[in-house]
Amino acid sequence: MAVSNPLGSQLPIIQAPMAGSQDSRLALAVCAAGGVGSIPAAMLNAEALATELQRMQAAEGLWNVNFFCHQPPTRDVDSETRWRASLAPYYLELGLDPAGIPDGPGRQPFAAALLDVLATCPPPLVSFHFGLPSAELLAGVKSLGCRVLSSATTVAEARWLEQQGADLIIAQGLEAGGHRGMFLSTDITEQLGTFALLPQVVAAVDVPVIAAGGIADPAGVRAAMALGASAVQVGTAYLLCPEATTSAVHRAALQASGAEHTALTNLFSGRPARGIVNRLIREQGPMSALAPAFPRAGNALVPLRKAAEAAGKGDFSPLWAGQHIPDQARSAAELTLWLATGAA
Amino acid sequence: MAVSNPLGSQLPIIQAPMAGSQDSRLALAVCAAGGVGSIPAAMLNAEALATELQRMQAAEGLWNVNFFCHQPPTRDVDSETRWRASLAPYYLELGLDPAGIPDGPGRQPFAAALLDVLATCPPPLVSFHFGLPSAELLAGVKSLGCRVLSSATTVAEARWLEQQGADLIIAQGLEAGGHRGMFLSTDITEQLGTFALLPQVVAAVDVPVIAAGGIADPAGVRAAMALGASAVQVGTAYLLCPEATTSAVHRAALQASGAEHTALTNLFSGRPARGIVNRLIREQGPMSALAPAFPRAGNALVPLRKAAEAAGKGDFSPLWAGQHIPDQARSAAELTLWLATGAA
Repeated sequence: MAVSNPLGSQLPIIQAPMAGSQDSRLALAVCAAGGVGSIPAAMLNAEALATELQRMQAAEGLWNVNFFCHQPPTRDVDSETRWRASLAPYYLELGLDPAGIPDGPGRQPFAAALLDVLATCPPPLVSFHFGLPSAELLAGVKSLGCRVLSSATTVAEARWLEQQGADLIIAQGLEAGGHRGMFLSTDITEQLGTFALLPQVVAAVDVPVIAAGGIADPAGVRAAMALGASAVQVGTAYLLCPEATTSAVHRAALQASGAEHTALTNLFSGRPARGIVNRLIREQGPMSALAPAFPRAGNALVPLRKAAEAAGKGDFSPLWAGQHIPDQARSAAELTLWLATGAA
Repeated sequence: MAVSNPLGSQLPIIQAPMAGSQDSRLALAVCAAGGVGSIPAAMLNAEALATELQRMQAAEGLWNVNFFCHQPPTRDVDSETRWRASLAPYYLELGLDPAGIPDGPGRQPFAAALLDVLATCPPPLVSFHFGLPSAELLAGVKSLGCRVLSSATTVAEARWLEQQGADLIIAQGLEAGGHRGMFLSTDITEQLGTFALLPQVVAAVDVPVIAAGGIADPAGVRAAMALGASAVQVGTAYLLCPEATTSAVHRAALQASGAEHTALTNLFSGRPARGIVNRLIREQGPMSALAPAFPRAGNALVPLRKAAEAAGKGDFSPLWAGQHIPDQARSAAELTLWLATGAA
């Protein structure tokens, strides 16, 4: 089935932005193969973002920068104290002093200072997760000539995004790895599988729809196109690329037999995200009422994660993964071209 | 894409068996259109089954009879007492006497007496939910010349079913309405969306795979075929057919705006099943540790359901539905032929 590609890229394949697991190296390799490479900016400060934007000037074709646009929570000391208390046995076991845990914000939402950086080297595409930024910031992004994408996890979110001015909508089925883009509701029972979400979003909006969630091979691309997608966004399969910065424990977990069991968990950040079930998820989750609001749940885990990873264990690491992990690692170019055979 | 249809039916479309919402009338109409009509036998005694099998003698082409094959639980009086106590405010509100609630088994698993009935008019296809019956019963079914289908909700279940002798496997993605076929695990976080489950099951087994979950239109059929399905099983869309016995409150709920919010709930039977979120699910679930083991949770709800339905309310009814409900009601023949255009 021949479908025109409204992205304008050579191939209708977006490499999903994956904060903590990749940078411009992966994105450039995807772009060189004709796909859309993405820079995850959720964990970059202005300086680091500027560096990545500079590097992307070498990109052939289209590329994308992704921001989170959550409302940072007001600090809730009681909630964080309870959370750390619940983790106390782990600190003890690993010989860590919980008093020494730094209290960083974890992830910064899109803001005026980052818009200023974007203006220095505007990307062709800017995608947002958790809705859209303020109307003013959104207008600022658009005035740079960037086309705007955002993720919808329900039909209502897709309609909202179109109304607010998103140029393209990513229908993120619940098979997808990493953070759910959900923003109109916090009820995970409202989340839909790709097979149900995608055609309903396509029917509900007039802008082009990009499919995400469970797509890891050419057959998945073909199926997404059959359900009305104009392009696909693929994450998990790219985690295995040599060009990704995926940690050793994460790579090992993705290729181990336990990888078929993922769950939506809020333990690592405070928001539901899909990752491989590990010790922390088994013992404290997958969803916990104790986890502080996004993104503040993460700080308390940092030293546990570091200590366990130093011992080769992913017990406290967010092992983000979708429900469909390819058997085989491929280079970014190989993977991009292979996926695109499903769109031919 | 032309795919051979290993079912042997004219069209690669199975109407899903839906206990409580349809009988031979729907199945015969589907068969007459060239699809595979199904008789749900989970709530039929031997006599009622014999009657339905007699009626199906008029079927053109292939047809299917579906049985549950759960292990009936030993009666747990404490659990049932706690469950009824938790529902006490509802009995009070509706003016019901909980002492008068009958204590039936709810649903019977496949057993020797039903095999004897099957032998009188053997169907071409027999499908099971919740695994497979004992090796002896399974051999009995096969000796009648019936081909055997069963549902897999994980790759491990698909491998198990193939090993035990299933002739065809239904990959039931978590978009599907009604009871999850899960039987190797009770952990609902292991359940996969159709987009992820289907291609992994196709890769894992040698028998033909039938896709279920989220398929409600020709595009869905096309997508399932692209992911390797040999045929599809469609449930929710058939609930709206005039030939179905779907109750008035259920029909109304399927066409109301709240229908897009379904959840996996164990409240109505003790096992996870997908239905439209109603008052009982909102107030007690969707999953409750208080619900007695399958199928015993259901008895206590019967009078509540009856009283509410008499007042036109589905507050206590299992409003089974998948995550993709078509906008429009069609006759069984129209729906079957329309779906099949996606397989052409």
